Amino acid sequence: MREVAILGIGQVPVDEHWDKRLVELAGDASFAALEDAGIKRVEALYVGNMMAGQLDKQTHLGALISDWIGFRGIEAMTVEAACGSGALALRTAMMAVSSGLVSSALAVGVEKMTDTSPAETTAALATAASADWEGVHGVTFVGLNALIMRRYMHEYGWKHEDFAPFSINSHANGALNPFARFQSPITKEVYLNAPMIADPINLMDASPIGDGAAAAVVVPLDLVKGTNQKPLVKIAGSSVATDSLAVHDRHDPLWLSAAEKSAQDAYRQAGITPDEVDFFEIHDAFSIMAALSLEACGFAERGQGPKLALEGEITRNGRIPIATLGGLKARGHPVGATGMYQIVEAVRQLRGEAGPAQIDGARIGLTQNIGGSGATIISHILKAG
Amino acid sequence: MREVAILGIGQVPVDEHWDKRLVELAGDASFAALEDAGIKRVEALYVGNMMAGQLDKQTHLGALISDWIGFRGIEAMTVEAACGSGALALRTAMMAVSSGLVSSALAVGVEKMTDTSPAETTAALATAASADWEGVHGVTFVGLNALIMRRYMHEYGWKHEDFAPFSINSHANGALNPFARFQSPITKEVYLNAPMIADPINLMDASPIGDGAAAAVVVPLDLVKGTNQKPLVKIAGSSVATDSLAVHDRHDPLWLSAAEKSAQDAYRQAGITPDEVDFFEIHDAFSIMAALSLEACGFAERGQGPKLALEGEITRNGRIPIATLGGLKARGHPVGATGMYQIVEAVRQLRGEAGPAQIDGARIGLTQNIGGSGATIISHILKAG
Repeated sequence: MREVAILGIGQVPVDEHWDKRLVELAGDASFAALEDAGIKRVEALYVGNMMAGQLDKQTHLGALISDWIGFRGIEAMTVEAACGSGALALRTAMMAVSSGLVSSALAVGVEKMTDTSPAETTAALATAASADWEGVHGVTFVGLNALIMRRYMHEYGWKHEDFAPFSINSHANGALNPFARFQSPITKEVYLNAPMIADPINLMDASPIGDGAAAAVVVPLDLVKGTNQKPLVKIAGSSVATDSLAVHDRHDPLWLSAAEKSAQDAYRQAGITPDEVDFFEIHDAFSIMAALSLEACGFAERGQGPKLALEGEITRNGRIPIATLGGLKARGHPVGATGMYQIVEAVRQLRGEAGPAQIDGARIGLTQNIGGSGATIISHILKAG
Repeated sequence: MREVAILGIGQVPVDEHWDKRLVELAGDASFAALEDAGIKRVEALYVGNMMAGQLDKQTHLGALISDWIGFRGIEAMTVEAACGSGALALRTAMMAVSSGLVSSALAVGVEKMTDTSPAETTAALATAASADWEGVHGVTFVGLNALIMRRYMHEYGWKHEDFAPFSINSHANGALNPFARFQSPITKEVYLNAPMIADPINLMDASPIGDGAAAAVVVPLDLVKGTNQKPLVKIAGSSVATDSLAVHDRHDPLWLSAAEKSAQDAYRQAGITPDEVDFFEIHDAFSIMAALSLEACGFAERGQGPKLALEGEITRNGRIPIATLGGLKARGHPVGATGMYQIVEAVRQLRGEAGPAQIDGARIGLTQNIGGSGATIISHILKAG
């Protein structure tokens, strides 16, 4: 297997981009990634997107975007696993390049969620859950996560306020990221007094939707080693794992088995243990998901994710910094784009380009993108140099 | 690059499966493919699907289907390029296996189109075209193809009746395929008297929608050579190419440049010329598309596709048999599944298992799956032995 590297990255700010179409957002992120990589062309485009068919009345994004960015004719396709679609774009680019079938690829995650009504967007998001067991009852995504969080609090004895550090940390980091949707720190009082959405999840437990796009150029490592001006970032581990779509049908609804499996696979491929991970771009769609991910990936004991957060270990100077540029909570969660934002942010850290949000001496980063409430989980280990 | 083979195939009849959910159709095709391959498990699942988010209110099919077929936990994702989604499942499985990242994969194409109203299904199909330039005007897929066909007739001097052999050939072959939606031959009179849909396209120029699923098991060639009871089929060529999504924006709306590019790539990879192709599973969504594909793939001169058909060269004993088990016109066109039906049918031919529809001495088959009206085209060369 040919090893692959990320040669360039690009992103647009997560926002309500009412003046830009989906293809323009994808294009702007792609142009930035190509310029950053210093190359003029790629052989293939893999697009992570979940909802354009439903919200933009536009499927077939691969051909659309490759034409828009001036690469009419190249291989192109969309990949999808709900909110995990973004990281699948990188995974597919890696498979294409490491197989030798393609010599360079662009992975783009893109989503446009704010041109439609909240009801339409919420209904489209709900298609990530089981239509037969969950969607049919009208349960929303925040509703499903609320059920999980309530059970978790009951099972392990945590109070709602114990989750405050997740939100506070993400907002503190997002304040240092010019691409984040929310660039303002929050206090514990703001967290505690936020309006309730689906008890026990309040507004500060939930990530905001948004429009956004993020991209990366993927090439064979051996072709670019020693030639690039910027520090090279290698994809040292990549794994996708799944679980039951319907939450009730899992062996344990409080354990993200697909997070555990994909993280363990990625660690093994990279030849590392969790102790060696310098930072973790986590899928904190809801604060409960951050806690569960930390546990499944080996950073906290079962049921003890909030303890790690309460002890300050998830902040920039802690044992395992998470959401270092704002995470889903503050950078925002344009669903099909989120996984690629995580990749872009990890590369910024590994290159030492994260500015005031920089993790000192970051050499190894874990990114983890979650589809549904844990049914598809994609883990990547990126290494500097 | 590791060479890959197709070890097993499975399909369900294309029909109005009102008694089966999408996941059951995908499951039935998958079980058949696994049984045919004689293996119990695969490491990954790649699902070709276009419209489940819109019509079934269900995205995230990878996790859903892998759980249903008993493989909870494995890597899984959906791949999409409108009506070209099916062949992308095989393409992705091939990339995964040839990279060495995955040692065995299941490629499944699935679509459920008949549980919704014709208006809903037609609107969902239209998302394959450019929303900004075509969909916004309310043009349907048959409408776009009618514009292309009318221009073609004007440019090259063909009459409507000259396209009759495409439909007659597909129906004659579909009559020999128990999995085909329409298993009845038609006469030229039936063709000429069919109701008009979008002038000049009548009912017999257009393929029917349907519910269906088809699957294939993909493994490294070296692992199975000499071990399998059934004749091995190798993926000798695989290529994806794109063109402008909006038809008006193409350099020549009467030339499928993505068909030409992907077919030429596939020929080169396989080390063959079009002369060596024994049969062609063609994307005859409309009879005009069959003509254009034959030309772009090197079987007819520009503008002369109908001539080849009129001379009888597309039938089982002709120079280049097409749609050998009914094609889209008679087997049916469950859009995201179609590309995998083509693969299943080509494997049946190459194994000598096509029964009365068998092409004598078939050793090399071309399959071509088209997304939109030519914006994404996937070509595969399959070789026996």
